[in-house]
Amino acid sequence: MPEFTIILVQPKFAGNIGSIARSMANFGIKDIILVDPCELGDDAFRFAKHARPIIENAKIVDDFPTAMGMVDLVVGTSGISTENGRKFNRQPMTPKEFAEHVHDKDGMIGLVFGREDQGLYNDEISKCDLLVNIPTSPEYPIMNISQAATVIMYEAATMGEATSSKQMARSSDKETLHTLFDEMLEETNYPKHKMPKTKVMFRRIISRADLTKWEFHTLAGTISRSSRTIQRLRKKIK
Amino acid sequence: MPEFTIILVQPKFAGNIGSIARSMANFGIKDIILVDPCELGDDAFRFAKHARPIIENAKIVDDFPTAMGMVDLVVGTSGISTENGRKFNRQPMTPKEFAEHVHDKDGMIGLVFGREDQGLYNDEISKCDLLVNIPTSPEYPIMNISQAATVIMYEAATMGEATSSKQMARSSDKETLHTLFDEMLEETNYPKHKMPKTKVMFRRIISRADLTKWEFHTLAGTISRSSRTIQRLRKKIK
Repeated sequence: MPEFTIILVQPKFAGNIGSIARSMANFGIKDIILVDPCELGDDAFRFAKHARPIIENAKIVDDFPTAMGMVDLVVGTSGISTENGRKFNRQPMTPKEFAEHVHDKDGMIGLVFGREDQGLYNDEISKCDLLVNIPTSPEYPIMNISQAATVIMYEAATMGEATSSKQMARSSDKETLHTLFDEMLEETNYPKHKMPKTKVMFRRIISRADLTKWEFHTLAGTISRSSRTIQRLRKKIK
Repeated sequence: MPEFTIILVQPKFAGNIGSIARSMANFGIKDIILVDPCELGDDAFRFAKHARPIIENAKIVDDFPTAMGMVDLVVGTSGISTENGRKFNRQPMTPKEFAEHVHDKDGMIGLVFGREDQGLYNDEISKCDLLVNIPTSPEYPIMNISQAATVIMYEAATMGEATSSKQMARSSDKETLHTLFDEMLEETNYPKHKMPKTKVMFRRIISRADLTKWEFHTLAGTISRSSRTIQRLRKKIK
């Protein structure tokens, strides 16, 4: 079974932080990371009710990458979905698909919620390993942040009993793979304007496939051989 | 598919009524019945945001039996569960069991939520056709009423549509990708004895990730560029 950490990016209203803390306690989630938050005024504690310790122990960090480094899998949430297959970075899982996907994993999963008004920015969404979206009415799709967080925590907390848990690769293994993939794109003069989209696509594919440690190393090996072969041949020419 | 009406029994805070109205709009539920409610002050409209019409059209009644008469099935919600088999009137379904149970029924289902502090009284619970309880942490089981209502509306609204639909790739797309991957292994002089295992691994990873048509083409493109770059450089050397 994985564990969960809630990550709020630039939350604007203390009351929402408090409401989310209360729901965290309802679903047995203890850790919250606040990225550049508003002041934690009275409202935070008033809405948290008995979940006061969660707010008191909140970790406060300056930027999103720092928060990302504190968890093993970064799961973004978005109020906006898309039917367009090319907008892959906006192609989310439902909360049920997400719970199904992660329930037999180990490690710390960061559930990331964006600003109350603007959500997560595109570059933040691009950095997420997975994206989750709650299916809502097209007429009024935007949920209150604490309601959305509650639904996703509820699904995460009530997901099926673990069958067999397998070892999730560490984030350092993953980053090595992605760095090697990026290098391969560079070495093959991949069109610059397509590069960001293709990198995000690769990251999403790899997250969905849920690689074991061995698979990461083997796949990284094949990609790295490509770049090394190209570099060696280029040297011979010079 | 059934329809849903929300029934709030003696709600005390207008803000909660507003929050629930907003979630109703998020999940396409239009009707609310308020049993002997608090005054519908500014907070109701402020928290409802774009769901203002739901509050304006709320039906206000004096007692619970009147509200019961306006729906076909009365479903109570309770923050308190019991392990005692004799307390049958406190033995609830989970929200998922409830959604499963009613998704192929027709008619108007009333989802009943009690007072913020005291919930539904025993005699009210006894009158309900079904009882639903959200599984929560035993350390802090009591959810905020609007959070609890949101979770139950979410389950009711998303029942039967668990997966998001996307265009699947054809098997010819897949085979092209695998042929290109094999070619890359050849071009980089990948160790012969490791090749079969690595090819199967790649196939498994790709199947698990469930690629869209567009993802197949883009990934195939990056791999093909590697082989083409190597081939071109080799020609220059000869």
